Amino acid sequence: MALEIEIKAYCPHIEKLRERVLSLGAVEAGIAREEDVYYNHPSRDFGQSDEALRIRRIGGRNILTYKGPRLGGRSKTRYEQEVLVSETAEMEDILDRLGFVRVESIVKQRELFRLGAVEICIDSVEGLGDFVELETGGEDMVKAENELFALASNLGLERFERKSYLELKLEKAKA
Amino acid sequence: MALEIEIKAYCPHIEKLRERVLSLGAVEAGIAREEDVYYNHPSRDFGQSDEALRIRRIGGRNILTYKGPRLGGRSKTRYEQEVLVSETAEMEDILDRLGFVRVESIVKQRELFRLGAVEICIDSVEGLGDFVELETGGEDMVKAENELFALASNLGLERFERKSYLELKLEKAKA
Repeated sequence: MALEIEIKAYCPHIEKLRERVLSLGAVEAGIAREEDVYYNHPSRDFGQSDEALRIRRIGGRNILTYKGPRLGGRSKTRYEQEVLVSETAEMEDILDRLGFVRVESIVKQRELFRLGAVEICIDSVEGLGDFVELETGGEDMVKAENELFALASNLGLERFERKSYLELKLEKAKA
Repeated sequence: MALEIEIKAYCPHIEKLRERVLSLGAVEAGIAREEDVYYNHPSRDFGQSDEALRIRRIGGRNILTYKGPRLGGRSKTRYEQEVLVSETAEMEDILDRLGFVRVESIVKQRELFRLGAVEICIDSVEGLGDFVELETGGEDMVKAENELFALASNLGLERFERKSYLELKLEKAKA
């Protein structure tokens, strides 16, 4: 089972955070624009079931991702499965014809760093602002959460957010 | 709109048919084992709606294909959309989690020939027997049908079949 164990925090100062990340020995692993399109299911409401289905474009790659419901705990840990697809337009057409409904799109610039087994993402999300995501894999959620929150503390992160970018954007659209 | 205009016939003698195909100037374009897994939709019955969703493995490639309802006429013309996916296991997992249900698998050896814009497939389908499919694209279904049936006549094909391999296999399982 592929668990994505992840915590997210608001990022008040990108430059300061980048300095801290590098000072801990993290390695910069690239910067990319990510364009996500989120879908709802033809017969169940992902907003209720806390699932997600997304097509992401990043560079020349296209990724279809399913995310299961968050598993509780202090993080936003959830099952995640992804597959590379050759063309977004073709995948979108198949989802449309199967009755999936486009909900929202999220565009962000993501700067990625690696620190051991942890990915540190500094995200500038269009319409939402700047965030940091700390992510790791594995099967021991509690141990991984402790490691991620210790790292977050080292980075001076204080304001955490369990909601997804999709939820934040949908909330903002309603407000 | 990507129309797949296709007719299918039973093939009593593969060797004789192959000779006729080559004598018309068709070019052999490869032979491959195709392993298809068909799915049903979480909330509508593809048997009723005459749609299909399939994952095909062929050589090192994996293809997700959606087929719309047959459009009438004398052929099995239908809308078709496909996308390459990196791994069948990951795609199957995503479909399972979205509530799609595995219905049946079809395994065949397909020998492919090209004659102008027409693909001629000689299929040996496990559990069903030998068939010939003549397929072309385009938007003028009637014109394409006439061309395909003229070619079928040249090939000596007589017993046509509008049902899909999936339907034939499901019928056989019921009988």
